[in-house]
Amino acid sequence: MIRIGILGYGNLGKGVESAICQNPDMELTAVFTRRNPENLQVRTKSAKVLSADELEHMQDEIDVLILCGGSATDLPVQTPKYAAMYNVVDSFDTHARIPEHFAAVDVPAKAAGKIGIISCGWDPGMFSLNRLYANCVLPEGHDYTFWGKGVSQGHSDAVRRIAGVKDCRQYTIPVPEAQEAVRSGSNPELTTREKHTRECFVVAEEGADLAKIEQEIVTMPNYFSDYDTTVHFITEEEMKRDHSGLPHGGSVIRTGVTGMAKENKHVIEYSLKLDSNPEFTGSVIVAYARAAYRMNKEGLSGCKTVFDIAPAYLSAKSAEELRAHLL
Amino acid sequence: MIRIGILGYGNLGKGVESAICQNPDMELTAVFTRRNPENLQVRTKSAKVLSADELEHMQDEIDVLILCGGSATDLPVQTPKYAAMYNVVDSFDTHARIPEHFAAVDVPAKAAGKIGIISCGWDPGMFSLNRLYANCVLPEGHDYTFWGKGVSQGHSDAVRRIAGVKDCRQYTIPVPEAQEAVRSGSNPELTTREKHTRECFVVAEEGADLAKIEQEIVTMPNYFSDYDTTVHFITEEEMKRDHSGLPHGGSVIRTGVTGMAKENKHVIEYSLKLDSNPEFTGSVIVAYARAAYRMNKEGLSGCKTVFDIAPAYLSAKSAEELRAHLL
Repeated sequence: MIRIGILGYGNLGKGVESAICQNPDMELTAVFTRRNPENLQVRTKSAKVLSADELEHMQDEIDVLILCGGSATDLPVQTPKYAAMYNVVDSFDTHARIPEHFAAVDVPAKAAGKIGIISCGWDPGMFSLNRLYANCVLPEGHDYTFWGKGVSQGHSDAVRRIAGVKDCRQYTIPVPEAQEAVRSGSNPELTTREKHTRECFVVAEEGADLAKIEQEIVTMPNYFSDYDTTVHFITEEEMKRDHSGLPHGGSVIRTGVTGMAKENKHVIEYSLKLDSNPEFTGSVIVAYARAAYRMNKEGLSGCKTVFDIAPAYLSAKSAEELRAHLL
Repeated sequence: MIRIGILGYGNLGKGVESAICQNPDMELTAVFTRRNPENLQVRTKSAKVLSADELEHMQDEIDVLILCGGSATDLPVQTPKYAAMYNVVDSFDTHARIPEHFAAVDVPAKAAGKIGIISCGWDPGMFSLNRLYANCVLPEGHDYTFWGKGVSQGHSDAVRRIAGVKDCRQYTIPVPEAQEAVRSGSNPELTTREKHTRECFVVAEEGADLAKIEQEIVTMPNYFSDYDTTVHFITEEEMKRDHSGLPHGGSVIRTGVTGMAKENKHVIEYSLKLDSNPEFTGSVIVAYARAAYRMNKEGLSGCKTVFDIAPAYLSAKSAEELRAHLL
C-alpha cells in the first residue's frame, strides 16, 4: 500500500481524497491542516486529521505527501519545504513561474533523496503532455488551446471583490466557430476575443446598482476587458440550485503538415469534459503520486514534471499487463 | 546530428524519410533495400541507397535504424536481428503478438547495449499512450476506440484477392451515433456492427460478375461479415482520381466517474484526422528514434515501448525550454 498524506482540505484536497478511494493500492493515512484539526472532519474514516506541524516527524508513516494549497502563496513555500522531507506532488499552475518553482524544489528534493513532482493536473498536466507529444510528432504546425465550458475560480473571485456583489460564478466558453476553424486545419490567427467568451452569474446585494456592477465587470482589465462578457443577475437560490458544480474542460489542438512538399495536413486533438474540475485534477495528481513513489523506490530523486515521467510509472499494472492489454 | 537508416522503402519508409526532413537534428544516412539498390531512387539527395546486406558493417555510420517492413513476416525476423547491431525502431502492429515480439527484441538489444523501440505509430502508439494515461487517471470507466474514416490496407488487400477484382480501396467509417452515445458518457455496450461501417470502392475486370463479387465481399468472414458493408464499382480512372490518398484517423475515448459517491462523470477524448497514414506514422517513429538515440547515449538498453519512455526524450528541445514553453 502506498501511504498518502494530504496537506490542505479544500476542493482539491477533497478531490484527491476521493481519487485515493478509487485506487486499491493506496490509502489516505492523514489529512494535515493549518487550522485546528479538531474542527475538521474528513470523509475517509480510517484517515487521521492532524496539524500541519506534525509533518515534522511523520516521515515513517507517509510515502507521498500531496500538497493541495494555492499557487499564489502556499505552494512556492510548501513544496520546497516538504520536498526536503517527503516525496511530494503539487498542482502549481502559475505557468510563468514554473521554471523558478522547479529550481526551488529540485535542490531540497535531491539533497533529501526524494521525488518532487510539480504542476500536475490537466493544465498544466495532461494538456501539457498533449502539447509536447503533438509538437514532437508534427514539428511544423500550430498549437491551439481552448478552455471550457467551465468555471474559472480566479475570475469568479475577481467579480466577488466588486462592491455590491455577494456571489459570482464565471464560466469560460470557447467560441464554436473558432474551434471549427482550427479543426479544419486552416490555421486561423485568433485574437483573445475570438477564442473565448465569458459569462457571469452574479448575486447582488439588496439595493446595489446593477448597471454599475455590470460595467465594472465587463471593463475589468486582464480579467474581462479583452472578452465579450455577458452578465446575468440571479438570486441566491438560483445560484445554489444551478451553479453549485465546478465543471470544466477544454481541448488542445495541433494542426500540422507532412510530406516532401508539406502537402498533407493532420489534426491532433485532445479534449476533456469534466463534471468536477477538482476531482479530475485530484485523479491526475494521485496517478502521479504513484509515479513519485515508484521512481523514488528505484533510487531516483529531484524535481520532475509530467514531461520527465515514463507513462508506465502511473499505472498499478505491471509492464507485462500494460503491453498485453493497452498497447 | 542523429544519423538515421531506413530498411524498406514502401509507403512507410517514404513517410519516415519525409519526417526526417522536418527534424533539423536528424539526417537520413542511407536507405537499405532487399531489392537491387540500383533500381531504387530515394528523394533525399544526400542519402545512399544500399543493399540490406551492407547493414552487417554500418554500425559506425548509423545511430538509429528504422525498420519499415510489415508485421506479418518482416519485423518478427528483422527487429530482433538488427537490435543486436543497432538502436532500432519498428511499428509492429499485431497487437496479440506484442508480448512475444517484445521478448524477442529485448534479449539481443540488452546483450548489445542497444535500445529497441517496438510498436511505434498511432495504433499501437499514440492511441496506446492515451489509453494508458486515461486509464490511470480514471481507474473506474470504459474505453472505446473508433477508427476512421480511413483506408484499411489489410481490408483493401483482402478484396483484391477475390477473382474478378483488379483493385480495391476499403474505407473504415465510425458510426456517428455510436460516437455521440460514447461522448455523452452513457457507457453504451456496442457490437462490432454498431461501431463501424465499411465501404469498398472496387475496380472489376471486364466481364466480371459484379453481383458475385459484392456477395463475396460482404460475407467474407473476419473482414466484412460482422459489418454493414457498401460496395461501389468504379473505373480505374475514378480510383486514381478519387482514392489515391491514404487518409486515416480515429479516436480513443475513455469515460469514467469520480467522487465519494461516483457522482461526477468525465470524458477524455484523443482524436486524429490524418491526410496521410504512412507519413503520420513515420513522424511518430522519427520522434521515437530521437528517444532511442538519447536513451542509449545515457547508457540505457533493451526493448522499450511508448509506455516506457518519458515524453521529454521525444523532443529536440532542452528540459528547460520544454518547462518554460509547453508545460
